[in-house]
Amino acid sequence: MRILVWNENVHESRGDEVVLENYPHGIHAAVAEGLRERLGDAADVTTATLQDPAHGLTEEALAATDVLFWWGHVAHDQVADDAALRVVRHVQAGMGLVVLHSGHYSKVFTRLMGTTCSLAWRNDGERELVWTIAPEHPIARGVPHPIVIERQEMYGEYFDIPTPDESVFLSTFAGGEVFRSGVAYRRGLGRVFYFSPGDQEYPVYHHPDIRQVLANAAEWAAPRGERRQLTADMHPRGWFER
Amino acid sequence: MRILVWNENVHESRGDEVVLENYPHGIHAAVAEGLRERLGDAADVTTATLQDPAHGLTEEALAATDVLFWWGHVAHDQVADDAALRVVRHVQAGMGLVVLHSGHYSKVFTRLMGTTCSLAWRNDGERELVWTIAPEHPIARGVPHPIVIERQEMYGEYFDIPTPDESVFLSTFAGGEVFRSGVAYRRGLGRVFYFSPGDQEYPVYHHPDIRQVLANAAEWAAPRGERRQLTADMHPRGWFER
Amino acid sequence: MRILVWNENVHESRGDEVVLENYPHGIHAAVAEGLRERLGDAADVTTATLQDPAHGLTEEALAATDVLFWWGHVAHDQVADDAALRVVRHVQAGMGLVVLHSGHYSKVFTRLMGTTCSLAWRNDGERELVWTIAPEHPIARGVPHPIVIERQEMYGEYFDIPTPDESVFLSTFAGGEVFRSGVAYRRGLGRVFYFSPGDQEYPVYHHPDIRQVLANAAEWAAPRGERRQLTADMHPRGWFER
Amino acid sequence: MRILVWNENVHESRGDEVVLENYPHGIHAAVAEGLRERLGDAADVTTATLQDPAHGLTEEALAATDVLFWWGHVAHDQVADDAALRVVRHVQAGMGLVVLHSGHYSKVFTRLMGTTCSLAWRNDGERELVWTIAPEHPIARGVPHPIVIERQEMYGEYFDIPTPDESVFLSTFAGGEVFRSGVAYRRGLGRVFYFSPGDQEYPVYHHPDIRQVLANAAEWAAPRGERRQLTADMHPRGWFER
Repeated sequence: MRILVWNENVHESRGDEVVLENYPHGIHAAVAEGLRERLGDAADVTTATLQDPAHGLTEEALAATDVLFWWGHVAHDQVADDAALRVVRHVQAGMGLVVLHSGHYSKVFTRLMGTTCSLAWRNDGERELVWTIAPEHPIARGVPHPIVIERQEMYGEYFDIPTPDESVFLSTFAGGEVFRSGVAYRRGLGRVFYFSPGDQEYPVYHHPDIRQVLANAAEWAAPRGERRQLTADMHPRGWFER
Repeated sequence: MRILVWNENVHESRGDEVVLENYPHGIHAAVAEGLRERLGDAADVTTATLQDPAHGLTEEALAATDVLFWWGHVAHDQVADDAALRVVRHVQAGMGLVVLHSGHYSKVFTRLMGTTCSLAWRNDGERELVWTIAPEHPIARGVPHPIVIERQEMYGEYFDIPTPDESVFLSTFAGGEVFRSGVAYRRGLGRVFYFSPGDQEYPVYHHPDIRQVLANAAEWAAPRGERRQLTADMHPRGWFER
Repeated sequence: MRILVWNENVHESRGDEVVLENYPHGIHAAVAEGLRERLGDAADVTTATLQDPAHGLTEEALAATDVLFWWGHVAHDQVADDAALRVVRHVQAGMGLVVLHSGHYSKVFTRLMGTTCSLAWRNDGERELVWTIAPEHPIARGVPHPIVIERQEMYGEYFDIPTPDESVFLSTFAGGEVFRSGVAYRRGLGRVFYFSPGDQEYPVYHHPDIRQVLANAAEWAAPRGERRQLTADMHPRGWFER
Repeated sequence: MRILVWNENVHESRGDEVVLENYPHGIHAAVAEGLRERLGDAADVTTATLQDPAHGLTEEALAATDVLFWWGHVAHDQVADDAALRVVRHVQAGMGLVVLHSGHYSKVFTRLMGTTCSLAWRNDGERELVWTIAPEHPIARGVPHPIVIERQEMYGEYFDIPTPDESVFLSTFAGGEVFRSGVAYRRGLGRVFYFSPGDQEYPVYHHPDIRQVLANAAEWAAPRGERRQLTADMHPRGWFER
């Protein structure tokens, strides 16, 4: 399984001290480290950032990716349209996509969902509990019920997403809010998982249970067959003797 | 719209003081009162209890019911199988059903769901917040986000239900738990709504927002057409010239 | 209910004889006529085309529209991006949308779905049967099972759409193909219905059962509440005393 | 993977010549043979019939089964209630279930669905085409689009089932009818797949593509974790420090 972890890497590039304390080599490095830790030799994990040529999202890079992880926050608009559309097309053709936290507002996620993906938020560094509502789902394998994250930003409903194909996790916050924090979709031949825990100000991607979820999500999202563009051309008009 | 509110009426018959303080004429009376208050002349609301002949669930009674509300708790086993099956068949044939709170374990609900309908619970009389996750859904019309219930029993995940056809509400509790508190299903020609707020120990059915939800649910669950049994016989074998 | 029927109107403008024979005043006129016929005074039906200034899809026009019908075929690319995005935003804010036939490839539909919306097709003018698989759904009210369309273009699977929120109709064709011909979605506060029967070469929009479906779809898709943009700003951070 | 193929085995026991010509050792033997052929050493396949003590569905037998295949037709009523309920409970606790053809009316399937599971039918031995509408679904792996079955009984809509969690196949028939022929559900910790092709009068279970689907279905339905009863007791009341 070839995994590409993408990060806008803007907080880190700017030298934001809180973020660098949590993620001295960037959020992408911590996510990649967690995936390597859990998946071992089963995965080849690389990273790319907004600052790379073509954001590291060339046709070649995407064609060589089974599952793409996406973290973005303040620079969604700086992602070039053609790069975002390449990602969307590769998902539709079979590439897996795991969208993290503030990636809900990214071009790739909003384009795949067809909704605003807006949500409520409040950053008071409080406890988040992540409850499993699909105990047999492979993405929930091996994590406690609930996962306890001591300090997190609150993301709350109403979360403007389409009805999920599969709902895996619900989060509550100390303030009383609720959020659909783990939701899964099919888009064409590709699988998409959105997972909200993870913020630049808190060391969430070092949390062992969160790392387990991300590794599970990679395995779930990986394509089962060949990547192929779904076009009218793929449907032979004379499919059987008539 | 003809509504029948059914209550096992066992806590009340036993003379449970806490329950009678909240519901001096029975839970069914409070639910019926709320429906009359909100729906006015648009609804003809009657009640029935476990103690009535055939539990008040005769073929005639059900045939004259558009929407059945169901409250049960300690006496699920005392509901006769044939009465429960009559209800199930009428739902499949088009009657609406609104299942309340501990009715999750009733014969009618578990039979319509096909799952155990088990859940986590803890009764500490604490605050429940009911959040809307389907803002355009008719059952969520006219209620705040969130509905605040000061004292309630906690119902929590994992709630063993099928994936809902429509998810309308999520509840959180002061202890941090979460629950899918408002979920909708189609079963044959009938619509089923499960709504968890409401317990014999707390005056939840006097809460104006809860009354609004129940009135909305009645309107949503009411059949749009004739009631009819779905059987193979209804499918003419020679539906067109062949 | 204010309905706007939009048509690219290119076949008609070009003077295509077959099309003009079926639709002498344009496809939009036939669709609008059917809606007026069935909805009577309950609906105010107007039309707009690609050739109108701003395609007739100004902010003002959309703000005054409850349900938009969309027919397009050969000129999807000629719809200006900003017009298409205005439609998408109005749907997300509550406007109903009914997408017809070859509109599956329109900017507005593909953007709301997040998939390619590709499908198989074959135009041999053969019989299409439209079967109801949701007999209690309001969009299926009053139509036979199946609806018989004597001559139609074949649209077939695989249809690259997200899993529908509600599946209402399935079509079969004389050649043996199958198609998910009536599918419903929620996107934000708006409802979207795609209905495939209807082609410029066949007089499908004069078919009484098809007219019934379109009128039903308008009633189903009409917004229940105020139109409002879903943004983070709408979620007050201090929603209750903390 | 331990697979148990169950067959009522009544047509065969009676000596029905047409059935015995297709299935000289019983339908269960042909299904089991196909599974062994495709799954090889990965599966341990056994069979049981209605005529076995306790129908071969003892607590011990079910506890030792990962995936149960179910074929029944004329003897649904002869399956003892307690045997059917044992199956239902094992599915809810994690056992996979694949229901075949006329098993739609079995006690186990109707109980897990909560609907009548009625359908239209017509037996004229005509061509069935099985179209894939979920090309990335593991159950559709390796089969053509469509699968062509030369002679089959027609099963048609309306099929009275709950909205599927996943819709994999749609069938059309030479007469023009349509059927949701491959549908998947979760019930508690268990997975359920219904697949309609297969009738005692036609040699469908010898068809290589049908055998591929059944093998795929076994792999999909097999449990991912331990089997466990979902009860309120499994939810510790004091799950975290409060």
